[in-house]
Amino acid sequence: SCRLQWHFALRLPRSVPNACHYSAVHSDAKVKDPFTLAQKDLKNLYDDIKKELFVSTAELKSLCHYYFDGKGKAFRPMIVVLMARACNLHSNRDGDLLPAQRSIAMISEMIHTASLVHDDIIDGSDTRRGKKTINEVWGERKAVLAGDFILSAASMALARIGNNAVVTVLSQVIEDLVRGEFMQLGSKENENERFKHYLEKTFKKTASLIANSCKAVSILVNPEPEVHEIAYQYGRNVGIAFQLVDDMLDFTSYANQLGKPSAADLRLGLATGPVLFACRQFPELHAMIMRRFSLNGDVDRAWRYVLQSDGVEQTNYLAQRYCQEAIRQISKLHPSAEREALIRLTELVLTRNK
Amino acid sequence: SCRLQWHFALRLPRSVPNACHYSAVHSDAKVKDPFTLAQKDLKNLYDDIKKELFVSTAELKSLCHYYFDGKGKAFRPMIVVLMARACNLHSNRDGDLLPAQRSIAMISEMIHTASLVHDDIIDGSDTRRGKKTINEVWGERKAVLAGDFILSAASMALARIGNNAVVTVLSQVIEDLVRGEFMQLGSKENENERFKHYLEKTFKKTASLIANSCKAVSILVNPEPEVHEIAYQYGRNVGIAFQLVDDMLDFTSYANQLGKPSAADLRLGLATGPVLFACRQFPELHAMIMRRFSLNGDVDRAWRYVLQSDGVEQTNYLAQRYCQEAIRQISKLHPSAEREALIRLTELVLTRNK
Repeated sequence: SCRLQWHFALRLPRSVPNACHYSAVHSDAKVKDPFTLAQKDLKNLYDDIKKELFVSTAELKSLCHYYFDGKGKAFRPMIVVLMARACNLHSNRDGDLLPAQRSIAMISEMIHTASLVHDDIIDGSDTRRGKKTINEVWGERKAVLAGDFILSAASMALARIGNNAVVTVLSQVIEDLVRGEFMQLGSKENENERFKHYLEKTFKKTASLIANSCKAVSILVNPEPEVHEIAYQYGRNVGIAFQLVDDMLDFTSYANQLGKPSAADLRLGLATGPVLFACRQFPELHAMIMRRFSLNGDVDRAWRYVLQSDGVEQTNYLAQRYCQEAIRQISKLHPSAEREALIRLTELVLTRNK
Repeated sequence: SCRLQWHFALRLPRSVPNACHYSAVHSDAKVKDPFTLAQKDLKNLYDDIKKELFVSTAELKSLCHYYFDGKGKAFRPMIVVLMARACNLHSNRDGDLLPAQRSIAMISEMIHTASLVHDDIIDGSDTRRGKKTINEVWGERKAVLAGDFILSAASMALARIGNNAVVTVLSQVIEDLVRGEFMQLGSKENENERFKHYLEKTFKKTASLIANSCKAVSILVNPEPEVHEIAYQYGRNVGIAFQLVDDMLDFTSYANQLGKPSAADLRLGLATGPVLFACRQFPELHAMIMRRFSLNGDVDRAWRYVLQSDGVEQTNYLAQRYCQEAIRQISKLHPSAEREALIRLTELVLTRNK
């Protein structure tokens, strides 16, 4: 049966929590928009990343620069920059970013991008951010190398920071990304463990990078391990919430003019939060999950079950709970505009629709 | 025309250099065989690598442990171990390996293995060391991840050494490996630059790992940058010679009972040393090189030209010159059994037939 003892799921509230609790604070006009506040430090970020990716051959250059076109959301660098400044102020420094902290903002985006390049090969994806993927344009072989190259350039930049704790913390991210991807490829998980497995995969694939980047910028300025842990926990919780919302949007956002939802995850055989919750109401989903939606009609049928269920809503509640925990953590830092912007950012994570 | 101003090629001796110059020393029974001398430090090396690759899922474990079966030559760890002990003795320490130096021996083998895993995907190879490749057994997708995982485990081990200079030196290797692979994929090189390009690719793909691993073990114990440079130059020269011999054996070693040479490089469209030299005598090869031996019969025709030419012999001379330079470099260290073993090792590089 799908009615399992899911630790997280069973502790979920049965009604929508009062989201206004936070929005009252967030709508305060004095709280700066995180994007605006981070802007000065993010200026030229992509140009600086391209300088790290110095390459002599024109073709390798085109591949490696492909996703650093400045059209990304720079979500990870933005969090890193704001966290860095909040941590600096917490230790009674001025808020200005240290060069090493800005490097970490760049490295976080480089690691993220390298993992996208390899993910797209693994998923056989042909589009990303409205353009063709690297594997689609240049083929799988060169895409493998482009990902390796971006990752090694990130490692070099990391080594140049010259802080062993920072190197260790960010090396862990790359390991987590691979483990997370492998967990995602695995399809035969024990039914009881499936939700735990999903959240662990979500941590490794998405949240580890954010959590450990936040930790790294704190290590550089705060002597207290407690502060590193606050930064880490904020990043971990925001990162998981971000991915839960992503998984939710895969069911609710409309990808093209025909109004057809993409349900890309189902097509890839992946059961994310909304399906796992829906399975509690519609045990018929269990067999489809186990065969990774591989039979004709599985994707459409599963999609309909999910929308009939409260799976999307429950996923949203869960994301809210992670954001509440992120806020609880970051609130332990001394007050600053950056701290408030990081709180507001959790709201943006929950309300984004693309 | 193929009669180019190749800097290296034109300075080659026209007759076989007196190989006995070194073998007189090497055949001395008192000089220990490098394998025997390194053995105590290489014991359990593969088991220790497997401990670094700690993985919870059985499948990822099988992939990641696949090539660490103890059946490899451990050529790189052996050089690293001998160089470490020679460097230790040079600075009047005892010869015993430091734990960090042994880690570098492990890391060098891990980086090498990760690059093989990705190379085999890129080349579409189905066998390696007499067993099926990872991409052949588990598919390309999982092979991409296995390579990433081994590389990130190597990065973690590197970070734990906690020496910034060592981290920087070994990060460079990964970047070089990718650049080298990209150089190899490129087919439209300017004709005049082709030999230079080949040697640069050979450095990046093979010698950089050996050179920088040798440098890293020296950094840990020798205060003088001159010693780091000796270690690096020994590794660089032995590494290039090793690959030149490899490229030569691709034409001369017999891969199966039918006595058919493998000429695997030609089949992959690659023009290595023997072909580049042969092209000076048989300009007909030029067009085949440019089309990467892609027409029917190109591989057989090119192979025959190479064996009719002095291409194999010239490649061998070039490998000897690199070994002579390696010996000249290592001879600057204080005398030790390890130094002599590293000298003898150059002879083994030249005389190996598989």
